Amino acid sequence: MRIEGTSENEANMTEAAEKDPLVLFMPSGKRGRFPVGTPVLDAARKLGVYVESICGGRATCGRCQISVQEGNFAKHKIVSSLDHISEKGPKEERYERIRGIPEGRRLSCSAQILGDLVIDVPQDTVINAQVVRKAATDRVIERNSPVQLCYVEVEEPDMHKPSGDLERLKAVLDKDWGWKDLRVAQHLIPQIQGILRKGNWCVTAVIHKDMEFSRPTVIALYPGLKNEAYGIACDIGSTTIAMHLVSLLSGRLVASSGTSNPQIRFGEDLMSRVSYVMMNPDGREAMTKAVGEAVNQLIGKVCEDGGVERDDIFDMVFVANPIMHHLFLGIDPTELGQAPFALAVSGAVQGWAHDIGIEANRGARVYLLPCIAGHVGADAAAATLSEGPHRQDRMMLLVDVGTNAEIVLGNKDRVVAASSPTGPAFEGAEISCGQRAAPGAIERVRIDPVTLEPRFRVIGVDKWSDEEGFAEAAASVGVTGICGSAIIEVVAEMYLSGIISEDGVVDGSMAERTHRIIQNGRTFSYLLHDGEPRITVTQTDIRAIQLAKAALYAGIKLLMEKQGIEHVDLIRFAGAFGSFIDPKYAMVLGLIPDCDLAEVKAVGNAAGTGALMALLNRDHRREIEETVNRIEKIETALEGNFQQLFVNAMAMPNKVDAFPHLASVVTLPERKVLSEEGGEGGGGRRRRRSRD
Amino acid sequence: MRIEGTSENEANMTEAAEKDPLVLFMPSGKRGRFPVGTPVLDAARKLGVYVESICGGRATCGRCQISVQEGNFAKHKIVSSLDHISEKGPKEERYERIRGIPEGRRLSCSAQILGDLVIDVPQDTVINAQVVRKAATDRVIERNSPVQLCYVEVEEPDMHKPSGDLERLKAVLDKDWGWKDLRVAQHLIPQIQGILRKGNWCVTAVIHKDMEFSRPTVIALYPGLKNEAYGIACDIGSTTIAMHLVSLLSGRLVASSGTSNPQIRFGEDLMSRVSYVMMNPDGREAMTKAVGEAVNQLIGKVCEDGGVERDDIFDMVFVANPIMHHLFLGIDPTELGQAPFALAVSGAVQGWAHDIGIEANRGARVYLLPCIAGHVGADAAAATLSEGPHRQDRMMLLVDVGTNAEIVLGNKDRVVAASSPTGPAFEGAEISCGQRAAPGAIERVRIDPVTLEPRFRVIGVDKWSDEEGFAEAAASVGVTGICGSAIIEVVAEMYLSGIISEDGVVDGSMAERTHRIIQNGRTFSYLLHDGEPRITVTQTDIRAIQLAKAALYAGIKLLMEKQGIEHVDLIRFAGAFGSFIDPKYAMVLGLIPDCDLAEVKAVGNAAGTGALMALLNRDHRREIEETVNRIEKIETALEGNFQQLFVNAMAMPNKVDAFPHLASVVTLPERKVLSEEGGEGGGGRRRRRSRD
Repeated sequence: MRIEGTSENEANMTEAAEKDPLVLFMPSGKRGRFPVGTPVLDAARKLGVYVESICGGRATCGRCQISVQEGNFAKHKIVSSLDHISEKGPKEERYERIRGIPEGRRLSCSAQILGDLVIDVPQDTVINAQVVRKAATDRVIERNSPVQLCYVEVEEPDMHKPSGDLERLKAVLDKDWGWKDLRVAQHLIPQIQGILRKGNWCVTAVIHKDMEFSRPTVIALYPGLKNEAYGIACDIGSTTIAMHLVSLLSGRLVASSGTSNPQIRFGEDLMSRVSYVMMNPDGREAMTKAVGEAVNQLIGKVCEDGGVERDDIFDMVFVANPIMHHLFLGIDPTELGQAPFALAVSGAVQGWAHDIGIEANRGARVYLLPCIAGHVGADAAAATLSEGPHRQDRMMLLVDVGTNAEIVLGNKDRVVAASSPTGPAFEGAEISCGQRAAPGAIERVRIDPVTLEPRFRVIGVDKWSDEEGFAEAAASVGVTGICGSAIIEVVAEMYLSGIISEDGVVDGSMAERTHRIIQNGRTFSYLLHDGEPRITVTQTDIRAIQLAKAALYAGIKLLMEKQGIEHVDLIRFAGAFGSFIDPKYAMVLGLIPDCDLAEVKAVGNAAGTGALMALLNRDHRREIEETVNRIEKIETALEGNFQQLFVNAMAMPNKVDAFPHLASVVTLPERKVLSEEGGEGGGGRRRRRSRD
Repeated sequence: MRIEGTSENEANMTEAAEKDPLVLFMPSGKRGRFPVGTPVLDAARKLGVYVESICGGRATCGRCQISVQEGNFAKHKIVSSLDHISEKGPKEERYERIRGIPEGRRLSCSAQILGDLVIDVPQDTVINAQVVRKAATDRVIERNSPVQLCYVEVEEPDMHKPSGDLERLKAVLDKDWGWKDLRVAQHLIPQIQGILRKGNWCVTAVIHKDMEFSRPTVIALYPGLKNEAYGIACDIGSTTIAMHLVSLLSGRLVASSGTSNPQIRFGEDLMSRVSYVMMNPDGREAMTKAVGEAVNQLIGKVCEDGGVERDDIFDMVFVANPIMHHLFLGIDPTELGQAPFALAVSGAVQGWAHDIGIEANRGARVYLLPCIAGHVGADAAAATLSEGPHRQDRMMLLVDVGTNAEIVLGNKDRVVAASSPTGPAFEGAEISCGQRAAPGAIERVRIDPVTLEPRFRVIGVDKWSDEEGFAEAAASVGVTGICGSAIIEVVAEMYLSGIISEDGVVDGSMAERTHRIIQNGRTFSYLLHDGEPRITVTQTDIRAIQLAKAALYAGIKLLMEKQGIEHVDLIRFAGAFGSFIDPKYAMVLGLIPDCDLAEVKAVGNAAGTGALMALLNRDHRREIEETVNRIEKIETALEGNFQQLFVNAMAMPNKVDAFPHLASVVTLPERKVLSEEGGEGGGGRRRRRSRD
């Protein structure tokens, strides 16, 4: 910025007399000289400093507030003082009387430059923020919404120049705001005359500019000054729908909420919903209707929570996995249920919210991020936009684990993506004592390598199971089962304590050492909690986890091979699952490749964050569209060596791959099998070398 | 063309070897050399010769037919022979077997150049006509429809490149047809996969290209080869709705029909309908609904008459007066009922037929021509496009006489327009014995200047009233009243025979000479037919005609003054009224200024013809949009001297203006009043001179 600022400065030097006041804008650092009497807003515009304004300098919208930093800024050779800015004029005073202006603030459209100034463009998200700090994450989003509000005073009709009211509206939008060739939404045409007259020829046009139209379009029109505009960012998951409501003018996050996807009644997982569509003549319609209604209700809720009129929503961004994406748009997802898993549309989709039954302003637009592949959807694209492997110098692995794991691996040079059928084991399904994360569910597990006695924590209880007064504390919620994160830990701890071999076999011989090893038929189980219910980890449970983690790891390895790399620098877990598991145990089990644990992070609902970025900044839309075009999609099913990688990945952490970073923090059991081939991980290394 | 052809020729000479065969296309005259084996279609494309093709050279659509002219064309130095074109190949033979090809025709996509050829591009409107000859008029319309059909074979989905079906459709439309950045109508997105599979990956895309979108748009998609595309051109008049159904591929006029505007039940004339809207809360809605239903029914009728599927209509052009225009679009016309007569929208309007409730293909587009002013609508614009004053070297006067006369005057340098409130007199209303043109109505009148006896003709009877056996012939229909055209004639004849003075006063003294001059109270009437009913022309009737014609003439004069001219070169009467009146009598009465009678023509429904031109050629849309922007609108009510011009025009033919052309064919009564000022028409001339 500083450099850009300086060059701008020089640029202005040439135009402006040396004696003209020097003005420096913070935080951008852009600077230039301007004649005495120049409104601060004009100076900002000239330097490309972003300052919001709807009323176009009439001191009525109050969005162009700035403040003067007083003092001697030696480094900038500027002595800035309140004497260097004009007194409040009548217009500004009028605004202050009616709406109030915070202490020390000025309306930059009215305040004129009288001398050298250091101007602070406030970043509070009530009036005007150029950058948005998303509450959920610490991410900074630069604001560049496709929606802009423009207040104009339209020429009244004149019999000598009988142009239409619409034509005169367009003319002034060009004259005052520089809009050329504006399109006007068809539904507005019958309303224009009434609105113009109601506003006594003063109106605010809501203009939407994005690539779908090469022409910007007036999507709404209001009498007088309209000073509110909101947007929706929504992630439609198979089980949950999450939504943010945000002000498009200030970037303020007004409300966030979620609801369960009502399509669950048509089928728990995605494939069962596809088959519902295939079985039922109007199944597709019913599911599109269901998700549409849920979204409409959720919009109603965030509007109520935020005290916002539904009618003030003008733009929406949706992300979803391919099947949700298609059902939301009213597309039959059948093709996604069978090879070659053809998407109806893979690119970004834009349209009218009204046309797909989403209730907001009649002129509201919807934007759906592109899908990466038949199994890697717009949600994965949004997570990619959020975490930005394509922006990294180092190699980043981004995984979103669900019944189907979506995997993106890359850096700024190259990005590859795939999906892997992990199945529902990680979500607690297919596990004898598995349950979803809820009070009473075991969420943490440790096993003493000597006594083989377990200790665990239960959701809703602060104490560990071996602590004083646990029983009392747990009495209310009980100990009801094992949730996804704990399944990872218990199996990992069983491996670390030698209860199971790296091949996942429960060592029956240990039954002699502890009552917790229980024989059932030809296999053995581990008794985690001897209560009501009795909570055990069976051989079948372990196999299910092995299959799931092997599928995920094999998919990751496939992408690593495509990239020609042997380790990743950064790992990001997107989605709820990632937020609860302990990266260390995930690595012990071999869900993910070896990596510096400090570089393994859970990022929560990255898809939602990506949707928010695309909502607030249309450059992010172009960014993800181009990125998705560049991403190389790998179909694991078609890769010859997937089977071998899968088999290797059945072992814990892996039959052939070394985990040096992990080994430095965890003592892994000896790897007898591999040692025969020449030392821990050696075989693996040799193999890989042989592939080079 | 020849010149262009020659230049093309030279252009090709440079590229092509001298020995390459020389090919001349007729009627365009474009010529060039092409290597042996070049398909004739490719040669045509290279030279910019328009030959329709949907299948893109697969010999399946059959629209690219041409024929070879045999012989020695010395003037072109070409010996053309059937030996110089390839034999029919298997594809062409297959098409001939299934669909048949007329004698001597070839499919230019299959026929290859073997030697010098003179190729005839047939102009029959069944297969492919570059120019359309409109049945109604002798007008030639060059065809350049915004609608184009493109057959493509789409790549099947591939798991290695998981792009969407839509993206692959776009890709091949770019590859085969050169469409860049195609937009796809939102409503098609859910249908694409089904259509592609139904067509086994072969589909025809219906693409609409026009300025409203800077991007061409796929508005419909069909499995396999789609070989039909139709359009509607419709003139929505206050009393009648007229419609043409035309093939957009061949230009063939399939059917034309009309119906009465059901809004009549809300009010006979426009202003009474506006007041109905003002009086009734849902009056606007009711009238929009009524006209929409009428248009939909009429579409149904022309489709039935032409054996065309409603769903095959992809483009529509509507013209109407401003109030009909607004009501059709669902715009409240109240503003048009009062000064300043503000149009909601004056420019051309484009949109989806579906959005305004017009039933055709779901993706059909509508285009409305621009309105010229609050009283000069899209119908006047269409008539202007049809008759083309803006294309003339000489000064053309275009008048459309209704209750409100629309007047356009100009040449290629400058065009001015106005409307004048003529009232309903010309339509037979406000006339004691007036009636609409129907059997029994008097349509022609002559009066013997000596005996003052009339003779007349009646609609539905061949004989004149003074001919043998008229009474018997007329017995069935009777003699029921006077229609609009006859009112002009009878008043004109009364003036020519001296029954009325140039000021329109019935000369009571003549009652001594003939029983046909009848006194009623202080004024006199002329007895035209002494039967049942008794048909007379009263002083009041004459005054009504004088007021109407004076209003029209004063409006015309106002425009002539703006143009600074004293006479017009060409006069065109648009609309039904113009088709029935005798230009000579119109001039005797002084409806229109003096002009060579040979240059006064009735052009029928010019508005409908203009709509058809805009439908078939989008260049005509740009032409009229630009022309209307250039037209200077004059509001007669605001012109100071309108009153004086009006008063002068009350006299027959006019108090001050001379009618030399008319005088040369008709002996006008001596103009006593004027002669006092110095000879016939002299006063007028002197006045005009004084204005110069």
